[in-house]
Amino acid sequence: MNERPVALVSDTRYYVGPHLAERFAQRGFDLVLGDPDPALVGRLESMGSKVVACSGHSNLSGPEDADALVNAALNSFGRIDSAVMFSGQIITGRFVNSTLDQLRQVLAGCVEAPYNFLRSVVPVMTAQESGQILVITSATAARPSPGAPLYSSARAAATMLVKNVADEVARTGVQVNAVGTNFMDFPAFLKASGATDPEVRAKIESQVPMRRLGSMDEFSSFCMAFLDGTSRFTTGQFVAYAGGWA
Amino acid sequence: MNERPVALVSDTRYYVGPHLAERFAQRGFDLVLGDPDPALVGRLESMGSKVVACSGHSNLSGPEDADALVNAALNSFGRIDSAVMFSGQIITGRFVNSTLDQLRQVLAGCVEAPYNFLRSVVPVMTAQESGQILVITSATAARPSPGAPLYSSARAAATMLVKNVADEVARTGVQVNAVGTNFMDFPAFLKASGATDPEVRAKIESQVPMRRLGSMDEFSSFCMAFLDGTSRFTTGQFVAYAGGWA
Amino acid sequence: MNERPVALVSDTRYYVGPHLAERFAQRGFDLVLGDPDPALVGRLESMGSKVVACSGHSNLSGPEDADALVNAALNSFGRIDSAVMFSGQIITGRFVNSTLDQLRQVLAGCVEAPYNFLRSVVPVMTAQESGQILVITSATAARPSPGAPLYSSARAAATMLVKNVADEVARTGVQVNAVGTNFMDFPAFLKASGATDPEVRAKIESQVPMRRLGSMDEFSSFCMAFLDGTSRFTTGQFVAYAGGWA
Amino acid sequence: MNERPVALVSDTRYYVGPHLAERFAQRGFDLVLGDPDPALVGRLESMGSKVVACSGHSNLSGPEDADALVNAALNSFGRIDSAVMFSGQIITGRFVNSTLDQLRQVLAGCVEAPYNFLRSVVPVMTAQESGQILVITSATAARPSPGAPLYSSARAAATMLVKNVADEVARTGVQVNAVGTNFMDFPAFLKASGATDPEVRAKIESQVPMRRLGSMDEFSSFCMAFLDGTSRFTTGQFVAYAGGWA
Repeated sequence: MNERPVALVSDTRYYVGPHLAERFAQRGFDLVLGDPDPALVGRLESMGSKVVACSGHSNLSGPEDADALVNAALNSFGRIDSAVMFSGQIITGRFVNSTLDQLRQVLAGCVEAPYNFLRSVVPVMTAQESGQILVITSATAARPSPGAPLYSSARAAATMLVKNVADEVARTGVQVNAVGTNFMDFPAFLKASGATDPEVRAKIESQVPMRRLGSMDEFSSFCMAFLDGTSRFTTGQFVAYAGGWA
Repeated sequence: MNERPVALVSDTRYYVGPHLAERFAQRGFDLVLGDPDPALVGRLESMGSKVVACSGHSNLSGPEDADALVNAALNSFGRIDSAVMFSGQIITGRFVNSTLDQLRQVLAGCVEAPYNFLRSVVPVMTAQESGQILVITSATAARPSPGAPLYSSARAAATMLVKNVADEVARTGVQVNAVGTNFMDFPAFLKASGATDPEVRAKIESQVPMRRLGSMDEFSSFCMAFLDGTSRFTTGQFVAYAGGWA
Repeated sequence: MNERPVALVSDTRYYVGPHLAERFAQRGFDLVLGDPDPALVGRLESMGSKVVACSGHSNLSGPEDADALVNAALNSFGRIDSAVMFSGQIITGRFVNSTLDQLRQVLAGCVEAPYNFLRSVVPVMTAQESGQILVITSATAARPSPGAPLYSSARAAATMLVKNVADEVARTGVQVNAVGTNFMDFPAFLKASGATDPEVRAKIESQVPMRRLGSMDEFSSFCMAFLDGTSRFTTGQFVAYAGGWA
Repeated sequence: MNERPVALVSDTRYYVGPHLAERFAQRGFDLVLGDPDPALVGRLESMGSKVVACSGHSNLSGPEDADALVNAALNSFGRIDSAVMFSGQIITGRFVNSTLDQLRQVLAGCVEAPYNFLRSVVPVMTAQESGQILVITSATAARPSPGAPLYSSARAAATMLVKNVADEVARTGVQVNAVGTNFMDFPAFLKASGATDPEVRAKIESQVPMRRLGSMDEFSSFCMAFLDGTSRFTTGQFVAYAGGWA
């Protein structure tokens, strides 16, 4: 069994994944990472963490993907103390223009992926009688979202899945929580929303109650409250991280 | 265009379907019904309602099913004033014993069916600039449900879909609401829960805050507040109808 | 004991009070009314209802006010089947300009009044093992409300009080629910908001998702779902009646 | 203006107050504390923090109390970066046995105290265009609480006040959040609940989904996510910290 705590970050290709990995390394965790960049691995190792890279499973599209990540952790370290995932398949547009096929795509990305992750990780942690899981979703889970009705609905399912799983395993001491973002500053959002154009960005920022976009650095810091092992008495919670929008 | 108001009840095979049809008939509606029993049709016609039966589409499993119901209404009456659906695919058991395939079944029954219904009905009503839609789901949408985690999660998606659609079309005057039940007295629940045995029934009733099961008669009366055209200024709401359980 | 069902409407001076009284009369209830206009009493009696007027207690500002209404009902009819109240003390303005004294006024109007009503009515109904209570509050209980932060907060307390009381008495069969309004068309709102001016009214209506104000006639119809005795299996619910705003 | 960040902890007599003060000191804050024990002050100073003690105002019962704490901070340090308060007046018992006077006591302790704190602190922070406020309340704000109906209702008002204030000031960058506890291990809870007796404690623990009480150490760590300045993009949130109970 590993002496240092072990964290699993499902996807370190982008979004908050690399930042989370660094936060864990700062706190003395060894790591299992989905599809990390070699430069990231180097940085983490220089911080003292053992790093196991697991490639090709970051999208969590099937049970075997989550199993691959979990098995990498168990084979290398024998346990998982903290596990965090994000996923998403956003399809925008009005409901009245949507299709059943789009709904299915969104459900696959936003409900099946977290399901696969939880289904693989939870039994490991309940056997340990300890562990922290954070599912990163979207603030649209908590507020109807003009232009993204299917996405908002699927995100709500993921939030409720987290609450149900949290309830089921609470007695084992395992925690399962969710944080949902919106208006985060990262390349895919900037591109999708047109905010690479400063005028468009200014317009989007004016719709955020806090009048700016959120950074991955501050978001990863927030996530640690549910992941770094220092606080183990809350579970089944959903928090919006969205500049006051939800 | 029909002179009397027109209601569409997606499924009158069981559950609250027949009761809703009778409530509409009492209030002077003509009706399009999914798979009605001939005896029901007779009763409704004797109450003065024109009744169009539409067979084979009650389960709303594809867009074509919802379209068939909607087209039956438009072809016969030229409009739809009120539309109500229910669906469901319950799979029980603990999360840690569940499978992705079960999740997909639950999502099909609890998210795709309401999606298909809304996707067909909403454009008709927005074109009319008037109409009332009620989606009947489950109180488990609002409370984690030991033994039905996938179901609870899928129901939450349907609730959020209702809220999103309500928001999108509110300006047209069309209302979209949801009511979610639990602990209702009907054959499928009694059988699934074992409550056909009086001892088991007593035990289940002891878990309901109101200490009894709900009847379809009283539930159908409640639904009318969202459907009978007398009150048109609330939308995007979810109400639990579950004896105080949620 | 009265043969016809008995309803108590705490305040029939204005707002939805007179409409509720008429709805009850249509459904065959005898009535105890707070401060009714004599013309209203005449109309209700001509519809066949016995009417007991109780003057000077409509504001429910102390326990003795609620007791006076309840005692009028018990003395005349021996029971109360349905009881509905509304109250309110709105103070507008930004939080940073507010005072503790304003908070106390709002708490008195929005929390103490419903408390007084519930505290008097509930024991009568639990002794009967039957009864329906509806507390009419504000949709601001469910959504932060720029310009009315103290009011929104106090309304949230009333909603939670309703949920707590509902829980406590559910096993007796007594139901306690709440409906919260916003953007209703009545003289005090029109005057307070400036909507007596058609231009101002148009601007306010543009802020309502449904693009209009709600009428007391349709609202009173909605309330009956929680009050007229036809549906007794939901309790502890809050529904916003506010044109989709909350 | 102080070079180090400045935190205000309204009450360091008990509960999570001393732990929060130490967490701030670890992170390099100077401190203004309500009624600190001299030994605590010594510890904090030995950690390098300047500490200003403010006595007699921890209960926040009037605006002058909150002003005294805020003025102590401004006079000594010229700014407030983080501010955290807790308060409470629990009165237990069934609703049907409660009195208006008890309601008023609970509203004073659970609504007026946070109001006073926010009313004094918020303008300082909006002028700074920066700052983090955390209001520590109760998980009963989010779930009806048998045996504490008035308390639960008052806590809900405080949560909604936090959301309203957060909304009003979001554009300035100031954050206002709430965390609500239940089942925490501290002397007053142990005594009030009888959990000083191991058998009673075991029974209470069996009612907590996580099957234990929470510690102040882990709770203070959690609070830091909303207070230590590392994450500034979420506001208006409520999180239950209650072992999965809410």
